Amino acid sequence: VPAINPERLLGDLYALRKIGTYKTGVHRPTFSPDDLVSRQWLVERMTEAGLGAQIDGIGNVFGRSRASGPIMLAGSHIESQNHAGWLDGALGVIFALEAARALRDDPSTRDLGIDVIAFCDEEGHYGSYLGSRSFIGDVGEDEIDRARDRTHGKMMRDALREAGYAGRPRLTMDPSRYRGYFEAHIEQGRRLELGKLKIGGVTAIVGLWDYRIIAVGHQNHAGTTMMFERKDAGMAMVRLVAAIDRRFKEIAGPRSVWTCGRMEFDPGGPSIIPGEARALFQFRDDDLAVLTRLDSALHELIAEANREGPCEVRVEVIRKSQPAIMNEGFLQALERAAAQHVPGLAVRMPSGAGHDAQHVARKIPSVMMFVPSINGISHHWSEDTSDEDIVLGARVFTDAIAGVLRSA
Amino acid sequence: VPAINPERLLGDLYALRKIGTYKTGVHRPTFSPDDLVSRQWLVERMTEAGLGAQIDGIGNVFGRSRASGPIMLAGSHIESQNHAGWLDGALGVIFALEAARALRDDPSTRDLGIDVIAFCDEEGHYGSYLGSRSFIGDVGEDEIDRARDRTHGKMMRDALREAGYAGRPRLTMDPSRYRGYFEAHIEQGRRLELGKLKIGGVTAIVGLWDYRIIAVGHQNHAGTTMMFERKDAGMAMVRLVAAIDRRFKEIAGPRSVWTCGRMEFDPGGPSIIPGEARALFQFRDDDLAVLTRLDSALHELIAEANREGPCEVRVEVIRKSQPAIMNEGFLQALERAAAQHVPGLAVRMPSGAGHDAQHVARKIPSVMMFVPSINGISHHWSEDTSDEDIVLGARVFTDAIAGVLRSA
Repeated sequence: VPAINPERLLGDLYALRKIGTYKTGVHRPTFSPDDLVSRQWLVERMTEAGLGAQIDGIGNVFGRSRASGPIMLAGSHIESQNHAGWLDGALGVIFALEAARALRDDPSTRDLGIDVIAFCDEEGHYGSYLGSRSFIGDVGEDEIDRARDRTHGKMMRDALREAGYAGRPRLTMDPSRYRGYFEAHIEQGRRLELGKLKIGGVTAIVGLWDYRIIAVGHQNHAGTTMMFERKDAGMAMVRLVAAIDRRFKEIAGPRSVWTCGRMEFDPGGPSIIPGEARALFQFRDDDLAVLTRLDSALHELIAEANREGPCEVRVEVIRKSQPAIMNEGFLQALERAAAQHVPGLAVRMPSGAGHDAQHVARKIPSVMMFVPSINGISHHWSEDTSDEDIVLGARVFTDAIAGVLRSA
Repeated sequence: VPAINPERLLGDLYALRKIGTYKTGVHRPTFSPDDLVSRQWLVERMTEAGLGAQIDGIGNVFGRSRASGPIMLAGSHIESQNHAGWLDGALGVIFALEAARALRDDPSTRDLGIDVIAFCDEEGHYGSYLGSRSFIGDVGEDEIDRARDRTHGKMMRDALREAGYAGRPRLTMDPSRYRGYFEAHIEQGRRLELGKLKIGGVTAIVGLWDYRIIAVGHQNHAGTTMMFERKDAGMAMVRLVAAIDRRFKEIAGPRSVWTCGRMEFDPGGPSIIPGEARALFQFRDDDLAVLTRLDSALHELIAEANREGPCEVRVEVIRKSQPAIMNEGFLQALERAAAQHVPGLAVRMPSGAGHDAQHVARKIPSVMMFVPSINGISHHWSEDTSDEDIVLGARVFTDAIAGVLRSA
């Protein structure tokens, strides 16, 4: 059985935390100076681990195994959200690196290989999963031409040039090389913590359907315009979103979540009937049938609002990602490994957040594994996981990969 | 019967429209260069009309009658909203001026006097009805010290100094001098137009109760936080405002209006459960009992929301103005005058908008008279009223004042 080295694992995570430290977390947005330092640091660690390491034309950091036997792809991402946690992404990359080292160090697994990858920009500073989507061949040059940092507006092309990555080829995956893809991540929720559990085997990454809803009425004086003659876009939007919330409670699946994250009334004065109202609304589920049902209900309620009037409501789709089903054999491998280390403390669960694995899963069998997040916090500098849970997670992760590769 | 001079009346309104013209309207915010020009222009017109004219320490333009008999106070305001209409305010001031001239010009009414006033800042650039409230003795120096323009932030003290008004005394009303107060205004609604009516006798100026509602929840990830564990401040606010709207429909009076003019979710990201939501909510009615009933319902629904949880909702009162009841005798005088000129085309109606008359009414009997607004538009440069309706309105206004003063 390959054994991970806890000091080496934690040492790498701590070293990475020192690059772009922000309070107890890190600030390493994609292509920031600290992010570039961390990518180069990762290349050095990969090289030390005997991997053929490079950074490609979109910033993906790839370490290719020289093993002669079956190969697994494993990794996550290395950049952070702005002023965010030290483990979101980094944990999965270092787990993959440590697993690759552990397999190499053990004579019984030396023929088994792990290609380690840190996909660029999973956190979406410049776009939507550009690194993993590039790796599966899903990103055209035009998408990169248009990409722009959402915080400071820099064009991705300029950032790539300044980083020294421009002109390099973008690496794309050869699916036939891999048995599949493993990605470890902090849970970003409290299910493991609340259940005193240690390992989450991810069954599916939820599909995310994202909409902009716009109600158009007629701006008017809030004192002199009688109720019967109003076209109040704000109140129309409030009634619609409240109705969607009520209907969704009746028809949602057990894992459905829905959120109205933004609401704006125009012009926004206290004594002006809003002429327009805009809302961002999204829902997520791991079951395409449920997503479709919620989408139908949303459209029915909007049609109903339009039939009733007096405002006009329209909806625009921002994105509709499909749920990504994780591989059953890989899930069982994670469960077998967990049963060795912490019997009874693993659970199956969907991922409510999006991850690179949802894109990789379109090409090769994939799975994700969660470790507990303290208080379920993520996308905040206070995000944390105990050393004990990190080490345990890396053991289960490595054993599961070794198990799959051995059975190949 | 004193006869107004239509050419003189319209000539003055047109001249005023040329000061700070914006498209077909005007842009004369309080103490703007064009506003100061218009105040000086008004002083000259008052002086020509034989009134003792001055601008006081807060910018009120006051023209004191030299008549020996009973005196009426009449006027409105002369500054405009930003980029707004040419008649909102100006019409009432020039009606008062023309009425004063008509009474002076007719031997049968030469002993009757009208003090003409243009109250400063009715449009609230610097505060809430500062001119009329100063005139009734309701504004302390500290309120002026704090007042600041809502558009560009200039302190009122600086604006008064630059205008040359600083250091002048503020005029306050001697209630015993007046039979009462008459104010003409465009309707700012469509009731007259839709009913093919010409004169609105205002029964009351509605009370306006204005609130800020704040819901506090817990900001979290919109994908990984299950519905049962959410504290979604945005959805709590949507449910509350929808519930208020439903309840108000059941318990409102025939003249009640309610408006949620602004809604904000914090932080406003598509994938973040709002941790806080803020709304501006107001209602108006001419009946204090109805206002009180709506206020109770609002507080009950907020208490209910707090009992149900999981978010905490609190409400802050921004202002509660009382409905101002107009004088019945003055209303009858307006109706008698209207019956002479346009039999059957006058109607009684409340004012949904606030006006200086609501403050003057606290000291002396007051009334307002409305003329039709084309398409009900106000606070917009396209606001307009036909010359014919303006002239008719001035005739009714003047006759009504003469009638009241004669009966004194």
